[in-house]
Amino acid sequence: MRFNNDYNKGAHPAIIKALADHNDTSFPGYGTDDLCAMAADSIRKYLDGSKEYDIHFLEGGTQANYTVIASALRPYQAVISADTGHISCHETGAVENTGHKIIALNNRDGKISAEDIEKTAKDYADSRIKEHIVMPRMVYISFPTELGSLYSLKELEDIKSVCTKYSMYLFIDGARMGYGLGSSDNDVSLKDISRLADVFYIGGTKCGALFGEAVVIGNDELKPDFRSYIKQNGGMLAKGWLLGLQFQVLFEDGLYFQITKKAVDEAYRIRNAFMEKGIPLKTISPTNQQFALLTKEQAEHLEKEHVFEFEGMEGDMIVARFCTSFATVKEETDALIRTINEL
Amino acid sequence: MRFNNDYNKGAHPAIIKALADHNDTSFPGYGTDDLCAMAADSIRKYLDGSKEYDIHFLEGGTQANYTVIASALRPYQAVISADTGHISCHETGAVENTGHKIIALNNRDGKISAEDIEKTAKDYADSRIKEHIVMPRMVYISFPTELGSLYSLKELEDIKSVCTKYSMYLFIDGARMGYGLGSSDNDVSLKDISRLADVFYIGGTKCGALFGEAVVIGNDELKPDFRSYIKQNGGMLAKGWLLGLQFQVLFEDGLYFQITKKAVDEAYRIRNAFMEKGIPLKTISPTNQQFALLTKEQAEHLEKEHVFEFEGMEGDMIVARFCTSFATVKEETDALIRTINEL
Amino acid sequence: MRFNNDYNKGAHPAIIKALADHNDTSFPGYGTDDLCAMAADSIRKYLDGSKEYDIHFLEGGTQANYTVIASALRPYQAVISADTGHISCHETGAVENTGHKIIALNNRDGKISAEDIEKTAKDYADSRIKEHIVMPRMVYISFPTELGSLYSLKELEDIKSVCTKYSMYLFIDGARMGYGLGSSDNDVSLKDISRLADVFYIGGTKCGALFGEAVVIGNDELKPDFRSYIKQNGGMLAKGWLLGLQFQVLFEDGLYFQITKKAVDEAYRIRNAFMEKGIPLKTISPTNQQFALLTKEQAEHLEKEHVFEFEGMEGDMIVARFCTSFATVKEETDALIRTINEL
Amino acid sequence: MRFNNDYNKGAHPAIIKALADHNDTSFPGYGTDDLCAMAADSIRKYLDGSKEYDIHFLEGGTQANYTVIASALRPYQAVISADTGHISCHETGAVENTGHKIIALNNRDGKISAEDIEKTAKDYADSRIKEHIVMPRMVYISFPTELGSLYSLKELEDIKSVCTKYSMYLFIDGARMGYGLGSSDNDVSLKDISRLADVFYIGGTKCGALFGEAVVIGNDELKPDFRSYIKQNGGMLAKGWLLGLQFQVLFEDGLYFQITKKAVDEAYRIRNAFMEKGIPLKTISPTNQQFALLTKEQAEHLEKEHVFEFEGMEGDMIVARFCTSFATVKEETDALIRTINEL
Repeated sequence: MRFNNDYNKGAHPAIIKALADHNDTSFPGYGTDDLCAMAADSIRKYLDGSKEYDIHFLEGGTQANYTVIASALRPYQAVISADTGHISCHETGAVENTGHKIIALNNRDGKISAEDIEKTAKDYADSRIKEHIVMPRMVYISFPTELGSLYSLKELEDIKSVCTKYSMYLFIDGARMGYGLGSSDNDVSLKDISRLADVFYIGGTKCGALFGEAVVIGNDELKPDFRSYIKQNGGMLAKGWLLGLQFQVLFEDGLYFQITKKAVDEAYRIRNAFMEKGIPLKTISPTNQQFALLTKEQAEHLEKEHVFEFEGMEGDMIVARFCTSFATVKEETDALIRTINEL
Repeated sequence: MRFNNDYNKGAHPAIIKALADHNDTSFPGYGTDDLCAMAADSIRKYLDGSKEYDIHFLEGGTQANYTVIASALRPYQAVISADTGHISCHETGAVENTGHKIIALNNRDGKISAEDIEKTAKDYADSRIKEHIVMPRMVYISFPTELGSLYSLKELEDIKSVCTKYSMYLFIDGARMGYGLGSSDNDVSLKDISRLADVFYIGGTKCGALFGEAVVIGNDELKPDFRSYIKQNGGMLAKGWLLGLQFQVLFEDGLYFQITKKAVDEAYRIRNAFMEKGIPLKTISPTNQQFALLTKEQAEHLEKEHVFEFEGMEGDMIVARFCTSFATVKEETDALIRTINEL
Repeated sequence: MRFNNDYNKGAHPAIIKALADHNDTSFPGYGTDDLCAMAADSIRKYLDGSKEYDIHFLEGGTQANYTVIASALRPYQAVISADTGHISCHETGAVENTGHKIIALNNRDGKISAEDIEKTAKDYADSRIKEHIVMPRMVYISFPTELGSLYSLKELEDIKSVCTKYSMYLFIDGARMGYGLGSSDNDVSLKDISRLADVFYIGGTKCGALFGEAVVIGNDELKPDFRSYIKQNGGMLAKGWLLGLQFQVLFEDGLYFQITKKAVDEAYRIRNAFMEKGIPLKTISPTNQQFALLTKEQAEHLEKEHVFEFEGMEGDMIVARFCTSFATVKEETDALIRTINEL
Repeated sequence: MRFNNDYNKGAHPAIIKALADHNDTSFPGYGTDDLCAMAADSIRKYLDGSKEYDIHFLEGGTQANYTVIASALRPYQAVISADTGHISCHETGAVENTGHKIIALNNRDGKISAEDIEKTAKDYADSRIKEHIVMPRMVYISFPTELGSLYSLKELEDIKSVCTKYSMYLFIDGARMGYGLGSSDNDVSLKDISRLADVFYIGGTKCGALFGEAVVIGNDELKPDFRSYIKQNGGMLAKGWLLGLQFQVLFEDGLYFQITKKAVDEAYRIRNAFMEKGIPLKTISPTNQQFALLTKEQAEHLEKEHVFEFEGMEGDMIVARFCTSFATVKEETDALIRTINEL
């Protein structure tokens, strides 16, 4: 049974059913169809009402990340990220390939602080040789982070203040957004996210869809001709309604929030099993990714029946990632917990 | 009823069924799964046996085009294309966005000739100021072309000879490959295509799949680290098995060839209806796209019940594109022909 | 003796003298020195008084061209140029290397018309699939053109009107600006150029300097952080005062205009010699470049004592370019004319 | 008197004289002249005899850096650099603008170690998800470094070994090469540099020329069409002989080595003056850049008569950079030392 990631199975069954139901319908191309419009409206219900939003559906996270960044920045401008940020270490230099430097800040538990961001921004603002250095113009954070952690509302507001003070856009990568919102340790809502971010995306691939991410643009400066950027960067699906359909199923009645919350609950069960067994965790992750520190023997025993991700070593211990997802069923978690109890 | 393009409906029903069947299976990520391997093997059965092929599945045509071109060319190298080539006029400058010039040659019926290509290559080869001009290093052609026409085997072999003579890669965009192979005017096989091209792709989006293109690399120089290019350019689907599954359904038993041939047959019925009615055609297209020249009145009458594509004017006449596809059903064509007969 | 181009000798002697005089002075770096400021002010005296101008000194023409274009355009935007424009055919794809498509229009005598530009702009404005095509956002013209011809004031004003109507920047490449202004057929002044162009440059390399081009930005939208673009694109000379010094020598008292006018007069003498001899000219060029159509025998005879540029064939005739420059001395022209008279 | 940098004055007088002498000579364009060929041969005399070298003259250091890197790397490949490396922090993201990530390693005294480089290379070599991360393919080091320090021959050979082991190019930025070679602490020769580096450059701008850097390519893989890269990146001077002339003057009889050695000797006098006065140095720099740690009062006193560079703070102390150069005269150093003695 695979706990190695949150994208190893298809989609929520309701999506497969809707796909089959619409297979013979003929649609306008490239996301100009009614399903995309309806899905966008369904999402808008959950957003802060003080702004208007353009919503676009893209095929995947890397694509969403570099398309947003390339659309927002001028050639000499850079984006600030955690050194553990997905754009910084797991996208094959996609952002640099569009011509922009990533200013990587040391992470703490996957996060960067308003203080560190401000220091970087202030260095530029105070510089007397600005033309020799890149201008930090965007801050990229992930919610949840790549290490499963969450920014608190206070932390997000502090970061936003720095962004406002130094004229930087705030971009939130929500590839696992559902698992953040569904965490019992979370105090942030989609309303907060949409109010604070200039642009963000809601992940579908890892949160119930076959594939697809919904990019939400709240800042008017970033809206013009965004479809041109999507097309130029290979993200404009001919049958764009495939994406609209999936997000409509997920957001029409809040299914997205239910299935991701359930996944986090299953992750907590795994976390608790490790804790009760006295096996150390790399961090007390509040979301669907759990990182246990295993001995070689423990890892080998778990491997016999379960698939998980090796994430390197901490001293002599193996860092092992166990992910739940919208598709995780209770019986799978039960089986994993039984094996944990055997360690 | 929509005849405006060949991507207005979902997928062949066998694909939807396979999707539903595999929805609860857990797969390795990013195209490293068995379905992708099986689909690649299924495709290989139809290719020329004298070479080995790397086969990759990408999400769409624009993405396939610029990813292949960016992977093959050095910054000062250019790609030769028809001025009507998709990369030249309908991809928002995606190729230039990767840093490469497109040398656009005048098309004849959507095609470029070996002679014109050689002239361009020779100009560079003979130049005494090479460092001031771009080096033509790749030839891009579409099979069928954007205007529905086909290169003959002789034409392809002539182009290949020029490519060999001047050290240029031959890249064939097969977004509508099935409709070319299924044409009764066609004398080119997939074996020929794979033998002659250094790299090409077989279109899924327009030929039976929900989405996806199979990039086939036969030239060893173009194979190393191609997956890095896919990832960097946003084309690596987390659930890559979705693409493998679709191409396996289409190529396991030759379904791809059957459904596209049927679509071409339906297109011929439309073509004949126009001809019998004495309505001029822009060209005698041998594939699934038919271009009729209509008066304003004729267009308005047809528009009442059918959707087609306006492609500009030729003199006083409207150029109207009617596409069939794998999803076109005989009854739809019957209805269109009835309306044509009323003109 | 070399008539092959206008950059085969050093600089006006006054520049060499000034260089020697300032060699032991210590200057602030990167163009922040007084000489650059003085040179900019000297140039401003000749510009239209209704706008304010930022003036930057870059090392060469290709660099000026792509730096200006990369600073002005967003990734999906394109620049319109004559197919004979320097950016289109003699800069090794430098503009495409920054990610932008050049929309090449057919030239007439090296020029493009307001009508053709408008047609291209209107096609985009009227398009219903804008996200699939590039947006023309800048018009690039050369004054004089690469073929030695000149736009009239009326032609420039018509082009400017189209630019205004369709929100496009007008960029004038003045690599040979002096030879245009010094032509007796010219009715355009630097005041006109600066009033009509959003950005342009005044060539030094071909017009009296060792090297260097003065980029003049009149449109406020194009001014912010232009120095960052210069640095990023390798055009920021550590000893920037070298460029300021040269332009100060050329513009302090109008030396630039005198030496280029004299060169055009010498070119007219060559033109007249060919005409009196009955040797056809490719065009009646009003500037320092003259293009004669020679038989093989004539070319061989001229080659014995003079260097000129082969520019291809027109039918059986060799197109031969003869350039004068600020450094051409009367005796050299006399010698060339004597040889012409022997043909 | 300016000690703020090593590029605040013109050129060695012999260069100014040569310029004047050649001003009326007519030359072929773009570096195809005899002076460039002679200068290249003069440089070759000092290089390791076991390889053949292509030598090109570019206008400046940033340009040389990104042109070399863009010519050597494929889009998904990255360059390893010290975090204090010039490409990493003082070139406005020029390398990223060409599409490549810089992997910045923590510096020690401006240097990176073979061990740290190997760790980075090994991480990639061992990775099972190579397509998700950038491939380190080049190592960039500066000799001397931006902090004035020098790699020993042993350190360079260790770095080269790692490069060979992991198929990475070694690129040495020699903007201040002369000041490294002229250091009495140095055990590295140009023969060593040329033997170990795949490509490097010898700085002219800071070492006696008005401007210009000599790029030396020893690895055959990096030679083809390098002139196309130069032109495309704006570095091909029309009057290329200006660069050839300067390097010929500097290398014909070893002038380059004499004037830079003299500058280092003057720097040592400044260093000793600080040390004798008990004023702490940031590091015992073996080259022409000296970094003193000053109190606010000391800095203010020195500022009255001398210009130096503020390089930030260390605790309460101001880091002040004092540079000598080929143009520094003994009387200037004497004056500075007198003021130091007053502190």
